[in-house]
Amino acid sequence: MLKVGIIGATGYGGVELLRLLDRHPDVDQISLFTSSDEGKIFSSKYAHLKGIFDFPLQSIDMGVLADLDIVFASTPAGVTSNLFPPLLGKKPKLIDLSGDFRLKDPQDYQRWYNKQPVLEEMLEASVYGLSEWNRAAISEAQLIANPGCYPTAVLLSLLPLLTSGLIDGNSIIIDAKSGVSGAGNTLSRITHFAETNENLLIYKLHKHQHIPEIEQAIGQFAKASSPITFTTHLVPMTRGIMATSYAPVTANVKEKDLFDCLEAAYEGSPFVRIIREADVVGTKQVYGSNYCDIHVKVDERTNRATIVSVIDNLVKGAAGQAVQNMNIQFGFEETAGLQGVPLYI
Amino acid sequence: MLKVGIIGATGYGGVELLRLLDRHPDVDQISLFTSSDEGKIFSSKYAHLKGIFDFPLQSIDMGVLADLDIVFASTPAGVTSNLFPPLLGKKPKLIDLSGDFRLKDPQDYQRWYNKQPVLEEMLEASVYGLSEWNRAAISEAQLIANPGCYPTAVLLSLLPLLTSGLIDGNSIIIDAKSGVSGAGNTLSRITHFAETNENLLIYKLHKHQHIPEIEQAIGQFAKASSPITFTTHLVPMTRGIMATSYAPVTANVKEKDLFDCLEAAYEGSPFVRIIREADVVGTKQVYGSNYCDIHVKVDERTNRATIVSVIDNLVKGAAGQAVQNMNIQFGFEETAGLQGVPLYI
Amino acid sequence: MLKVGIIGATGYGGVELLRLLDRHPDVDQISLFTSSDEGKIFSSKYAHLKGIFDFPLQSIDMGVLADLDIVFASTPAGVTSNLFPPLLGKKPKLIDLSGDFRLKDPQDYQRWYNKQPVLEEMLEASVYGLSEWNRAAISEAQLIANPGCYPTAVLLSLLPLLTSGLIDGNSIIIDAKSGVSGAGNTLSRITHFAETNENLLIYKLHKHQHIPEIEQAIGQFAKASSPITFTTHLVPMTRGIMATSYAPVTANVKEKDLFDCLEAAYEGSPFVRIIREADVVGTKQVYGSNYCDIHVKVDERTNRATIVSVIDNLVKGAAGQAVQNMNIQFGFEETAGLQGVPLYI
Amino acid sequence: MLKVGIIGATGYGGVELLRLLDRHPDVDQISLFTSSDEGKIFSSKYAHLKGIFDFPLQSIDMGVLADLDIVFASTPAGVTSNLFPPLLGKKPKLIDLSGDFRLKDPQDYQRWYNKQPVLEEMLEASVYGLSEWNRAAISEAQLIANPGCYPTAVLLSLLPLLTSGLIDGNSIIIDAKSGVSGAGNTLSRITHFAETNENLLIYKLHKHQHIPEIEQAIGQFAKASSPITFTTHLVPMTRGIMATSYAPVTANVKEKDLFDCLEAAYEGSPFVRIIREADVVGTKQVYGSNYCDIHVKVDERTNRATIVSVIDNLVKGAAGQAVQNMNIQFGFEETAGLQGVPLYI
Repeated sequence: MLKVGIIGATGYGGVELLRLLDRHPDVDQISLFTSSDEGKIFSSKYAHLKGIFDFPLQSIDMGVLADLDIVFASTPAGVTSNLFPPLLGKKPKLIDLSGDFRLKDPQDYQRWYNKQPVLEEMLEASVYGLSEWNRAAISEAQLIANPGCYPTAVLLSLLPLLTSGLIDGNSIIIDAKSGVSGAGNTLSRITHFAETNENLLIYKLHKHQHIPEIEQAIGQFAKASSPITFTTHLVPMTRGIMATSYAPVTANVKEKDLFDCLEAAYEGSPFVRIIREADVVGTKQVYGSNYCDIHVKVDERTNRATIVSVIDNLVKGAAGQAVQNMNIQFGFEETAGLQGVPLYI
Repeated sequence: MLKVGIIGATGYGGVELLRLLDRHPDVDQISLFTSSDEGKIFSSKYAHLKGIFDFPLQSIDMGVLADLDIVFASTPAGVTSNLFPPLLGKKPKLIDLSGDFRLKDPQDYQRWYNKQPVLEEMLEASVYGLSEWNRAAISEAQLIANPGCYPTAVLLSLLPLLTSGLIDGNSIIIDAKSGVSGAGNTLSRITHFAETNENLLIYKLHKHQHIPEIEQAIGQFAKASSPITFTTHLVPMTRGIMATSYAPVTANVKEKDLFDCLEAAYEGSPFVRIIREADVVGTKQVYGSNYCDIHVKVDERTNRATIVSVIDNLVKGAAGQAVQNMNIQFGFEETAGLQGVPLYI
Repeated sequence: MLKVGIIGATGYGGVELLRLLDRHPDVDQISLFTSSDEGKIFSSKYAHLKGIFDFPLQSIDMGVLADLDIVFASTPAGVTSNLFPPLLGKKPKLIDLSGDFRLKDPQDYQRWYNKQPVLEEMLEASVYGLSEWNRAAISEAQLIANPGCYPTAVLLSLLPLLTSGLIDGNSIIIDAKSGVSGAGNTLSRITHFAETNENLLIYKLHKHQHIPEIEQAIGQFAKASSPITFTTHLVPMTRGIMATSYAPVTANVKEKDLFDCLEAAYEGSPFVRIIREADVVGTKQVYGSNYCDIHVKVDERTNRATIVSVIDNLVKGAAGQAVQNMNIQFGFEETAGLQGVPLYI
Repeated sequence: MLKVGIIGATGYGGVELLRLLDRHPDVDQISLFTSSDEGKIFSSKYAHLKGIFDFPLQSIDMGVLADLDIVFASTPAGVTSNLFPPLLGKKPKLIDLSGDFRLKDPQDYQRWYNKQPVLEEMLEASVYGLSEWNRAAISEAQLIANPGCYPTAVLLSLLPLLTSGLIDGNSIIIDAKSGVSGAGNTLSRITHFAETNENLLIYKLHKHQHIPEIEQAIGQFAKASSPITFTTHLVPMTRGIMATSYAPVTANVKEKDLFDCLEAAYEGSPFVRIIREADVVGTKQVYGSNYCDIHVKVDERTNRATIVSVIDNLVKGAAGQAVQNMNIQFGFEETAGLQGVPLYI
């Protein structure tokens, strides 16, 4: 039974980790750490936890952390680059839900995050936690850079088609949409109900920090290197990401080939579902769950494929994949603590 | 391990039962029955179930039902009054989520439901499944009349205060509000997104069929018999019920007395949480869970108490309480299959 | 043609005043004043105004204000108590959308607003701007205390029934519900989309500052003096208020009597609509408009009436009634600039 | 002053036409026609119209129609192809909001609408009512084929860039998103609140009947003929369309060139607003109004432009543009009856 720590517990990623770890069969102690609200009873801040988690938040203490089996960090950019290096080589496994250890080129981090990157030798220690594509490395790594929400949705749907050469990687366009919880619990005008509700926004055109992460992972897993066009939209709903990607199919490729490829790629991957027959595909199909649903359609008029994937941004796009990676690290069933019917209605 | 059947599986109550029973540790087989869509693969109708429940819906067959350990019915009014009588005295426990077996006076049923009531001798066989108030009878009953969603929220908050005489039962006013899923999956104009979203509706003023159910239960458990005033509102959200009840406090009663009474009443009841300190109380505190949160405030200017309770209408207000009753019937832990952190964000 | 000023233009009340005054046939100049963002082009802050209002926000200057025909203030509590006194007796009419001049007893203001009240002699200069009930006084007043959103919905529905003695004023209970825009543009956790959406909240139980305002107006217009019980709920929608009020009917009073009374009271009041026949009444019936719709139902089992009224909190509950009061002050058609079909879909 | 008829008044397009025409300064009589609900008082069906439109719906009578100045039809596909031909050459101007007269090639209509097309000689009589691009023809036409909602958003943003050669028309990808009101008032599962709310859906991939309409208009106005890739998404909100289009820019084209081109194209077009500076662009900027806001961003890493446009699908995407076309036909100010601040909050 594991002793688990969550740093950044008061953010939405932290709260979702707590929801999932609370029902995990191999976890028996969860400690919550924060750099604000130390000593505060957690359920006084989040009333839905009353009777479930009435313990105080702890201040971050390296000695305490070093004694845990695993530490999750759900912190803003720039925090784990300082917090995690002293724990490298120590006992706890480390899973970072922030972007600090994802980009292997420190200049990319500096450019897209506009912050000081972690030292290059530390970056080498981290393994990119795209569970379905990196199981072997994850199982041996101490430090996992858990993927971003958008990259997870995009990569799971595109990588099989790119690695098999069924679509052309040179002109990929990704139109991504997210629910508002992706913006976290920081108050802002674009998350203020009266201005968010009944409003569909486009934001960070061509500037999202997930662009280099997607391109790096395409390079790593599919050996392709063209830049992508990537835009992000904010949808008036709480949870859910849909990535709608567009790419030319290569010569003579049919829709059936794409589906066959996707099904083969994810045979044995319980959280990826290939949806062959569908009039509609929606984010609610995976609400509250660790599933990623993928659908594809070839337009024979243009020889382009439209590739659709949906995830719950807080689960498969964050806390769920983090728990999945923990399962892989510790040799548990990959689905431990993560099974369950999505909350469709 | 139980073999379970759900009649009316294609409705929202049925789908929610499936979500909860799927993770129940003592259930190993779930059969879905329907009077429409027989033979159809369930996940082709509800895409969120793909890979989880890819089995066909079965037609309703008394022989098959009689061989199960328990049968849940989540059917419209007027169905179980015919379906269940032949199963009385047979093997399966029966839990009816419809209103057919709730009202002990057949004339009440006829008046409020405008349908033919079940035979009076059958009515006597049923036990009202308000779990926290009727455990002993539930544990021995074959047939449970599972409470309505509104009555559950109302009764859990009012019964302790009425039985202890802290509030006056002669002029209770209940202003109840529900999310839209309470109306089920039947298409209608008041559940049509473009007319429902950004719209708060009042409906069925003084005419809701849950009125006699609440009054009957107040009579049964608190020996009071005054009529209530009860209105219902439709809130533009999917899940959640809030009941805001108003009643005079009796002489010299203070807010603290009410809280003490509520806490004493639900000591040992893991799903009822008394919220003493609160600036706000919201339905999302219990989203997706079997909790009922209760708060109370005494207005010393008017000597009236405002009593607030929130539940998830599909869980504690329907499928969750049904599973809780199953747990009581079979002597399982009352929380089996029902634990878990609400989906607050 | 009037020259109009709006103080507090960057708040939602100010933006809504601008929307309404922009189409008013008797207004030809609108100046926007603010204590923040001076000099900023308004449409750079509110993109929906691009091409419509590309002028800079002005700092508050008493000389400039004194030269206008009318000044609206949509400011937080505690601002106009200082800003308006120097303008008393000067040229501009003054309409205060804040609560500073509403309560005639300074101790009430201090108690419920927890701020320093305006001097008592200044309070005497203000007239309560409940348009349909105070036309004569409004038409002669320089300074209007524009009613709060909740009081408008409550008073319009209750006053006719109280003044005619059809309902008993001694035990009125009001369960009020509002959309989120009523909380303004101040960022807070209860208006943060991810925690507000799919959440129905009760807040400020028995503590809302609109309680003394309602009681004072009932005293003023209906000569009744009992305290009310009043609760407020936040509904996950942007606009709309519903007040559901409960009161005993007096002896032998029938539902028809209530409707007749209401229709008689508002004959000649174009913005109040009595809805006799209705299965449902919803806030969207008045969305974006200055209407107040009223419905009533008598429960013959309890001899209580349920009285429902709906308004758009930003229009009839704030900016619309303010413009209506301006129309009365200047002798325009009461409906000038305010007509139009609600935005139901 | 015009006498106006609306056929299909009970649909959302009809209701929105009524909202706009009700405040039009040159309209003094509006008759509503329907093939269902004849004789029914309109406000009994749509309660928001009480006191505004308490007149009965009329059955469709060719003699009555022929006597009007203008007839709008907001009907399902396949209706005006039969209704309008007898009125050609008669007195009333005709504006068809359905797709029946849009596609000049009857085989296209048959293929994409799967219905019998109107006779080819009738098709020739119609003029495509994309107001900003076809004013001369509209002003002389009796019969206007009012554009579809998606095509309006797409064409207004792409046509200037295509006609000026700044973007390459050979690989245009359009990712379009719509609020739910676009699906009209027909009840269906994808518009049922409990399944629509908190759900982002993709539907009709590559199959939407607006594809040939967009391609035809690009051919007509920009002399380009490549097929487009076009997908449509349903967003959990009532009103609003966003079209996010992707196209390569031609050699040496800079972002500024695109903005200059767009501004030049719409100089003198009061309803098209070019948004140069923007962190976010949202549908709510145009809510309830006839505006189309356009923004563009060039990605210098990929030499692709992302072109964003937002409209209110019921106004500029349907009823508003229809009224704008009426204004052009009758020589009124193009903005008559259509001005006003969007309902941003």
